[in-house]
Amino acid sequence: MKNLSRRDVLGPLGIAAGSCMLSSCLSGNETPAADQAKASDRPWTYHELDPDITAARAYDDHAKGHCMYGVFSSVITQLSEEYGEPYRSFPVGMMHYGGGGTGSSGSLCGALNGSAALIGLFVQEEEEMKQLVAEMFLWYEQTLLPTYSPATPGLDVEIPKSISNSILCHASATFWCKVAGHKTSSKPRKERCRRLTADTARKTVHILNSYHHDRFAPLHQSTEEVKECQSCHTKGSEKENSKGTMSCGSCHFSPTDTHPPIDETSG
Amino acid sequence: MKNLSRRDVLGPLGIAAGSCMLSSCLSGNETPAADQAKASDRPWTYHELDPDITAARAYDDHAKGHCMYGVFSSVITQLSEEYGEPYRSFPVGMMHYGGGGTGSSGSLCGALNGSAALIGLFVQEEEEMKQLVAEMFLWYEQTLLPTYSPATPGLDVEIPKSISNSILCHASATFWCKVAGHKTSSKPRKERCRRLTADTARKTVHILNSYHHDRFAPLHQSTEEVKECQSCHTKGSEKENSKGTMSCGSCHFSPTDTHPPIDETSG
Repeated sequence: MKNLSRRDVLGPLGIAAGSCMLSSCLSGNETPAADQAKASDRPWTYHELDPDITAARAYDDHAKGHCMYGVFSSVITQLSEEYGEPYRSFPVGMMHYGGGGTGSSGSLCGALNGSAALIGLFVQEEEEMKQLVAEMFLWYEQTLLPTYSPATPGLDVEIPKSISNSILCHASATFWCKVAGHKTSSKPRKERCRRLTADTARKTVHILNSYHHDRFAPLHQSTEEVKECQSCHTKGSEKENSKGTMSCGSCHFSPTDTHPPIDETSG
Repeated sequence: MKNLSRRDVLGPLGIAAGSCMLSSCLSGNETPAADQAKASDRPWTYHELDPDITAARAYDDHAKGHCMYGVFSSVITQLSEEYGEPYRSFPVGMMHYGGGGTGSSGSLCGALNGSAALIGLFVQEEEEMKQLVAEMFLWYEQTLLPTYSPATPGLDVEIPKSISNSILCHASATFWCKVAGHKTSSKPRKERCRRLTADTARKTVHILNSYHHDRFAPLHQSTEEVKECQSCHTKGSEKENSKGTMSCGSCHFSPTDTHPPIDETSG
């Protein structure tokens, strides 16, 4: 892994971003359009953050804009307060959109979307970016969560842990509800997602810190189940009719399972 | 729907963003931290764009950073060239992260993630934001795509259309491959996603334009199949063990289907 902090960030990133801000104040639109796009289209410099402070902030920020906002804001607002621009001008409020698996659709967990957005912001090299995102996603699928314990809980009840086995909001929430015995719209489920947001922010900062110091090494890999599915379905296989790294069994029924009989009279 | 253009955008948005840029150049970090966060944490002003020009730009931009980048960049770079800041300083390059369903995980289609990010940037009111995202997602699930025909194709072959029945990258791609008779890693599949990115950018600008002019009205709704699933599983139902609006049948097998027998000797 390359170390962003050792790159010539004051060349392609620092000076470019600085001059863009300056030119916008002093000379309006006189910079050619091609140069303008180039100035902003760079990764931003990451500065090491404290994972526990980040988790606490994400827990608080979740209450202002849900999961994606909580994770993204927890990092950017710390950098903004410490370093000012360009972090200060990032329209963090846009990240509300990731709530409930993006616009409440139930798809990609918003906390993970916020984490991946941060990785996209700070890591330019594509394969490295994908490795960091993969580590986040596999950690989320395979870890007993949430582990975060707030100093001042929004809801002061015991929050059980579950292994989501999925990066999708609705599947992750459903598995937790099964373990915890709560409904998906219940207050404990919402508190679980708030604590999960804190966990995801902490893990994000853990891996960004290690990437920043050239120490990043993935701790998770695909399960044997996923590898078995991929052996028939992914690139280079016989069928080659699917792509991706998501856990399979949490959405697709097990090969031998069927849906319970639907009572035609109940609907 | 409220019209953002008629709001007092020069109060909470325009002046705030402008003064933030100015203060960063003239006075460094002297603005209090709380005010700094507030200045950037607002929706940005949308200006009407031409859907066809946007589609063509998204098709071109896809080649520079995949699907999420293609959609997001097609809108922001047009606004940047026409209006300068704050669009010019947005780090558009971060949106590379959405490629392949986010870091190649195969989850949420990156084109849709880019579309939803734009909606999050331009629409503040949460229920309105969710309605616009829902319209995008249902359109994507239910429409024969791609329809975009590039003036200068990256790959000059016939690209069949399919109804994805899913907002997930890997499911959407797999269904298209089944219809088209191509592998998921083939050049025609990549060209299909590039054209789909153009379609998604066009549709995004269509609905942002109509929202901007107080004319937004959703054209799509959940299918009967989804409504049937929701009648048992979503908020207020008997089980209340799931949430979201995604199409169900594209991931979960049909209630009566099973996976074909797995040949134990082949793996």
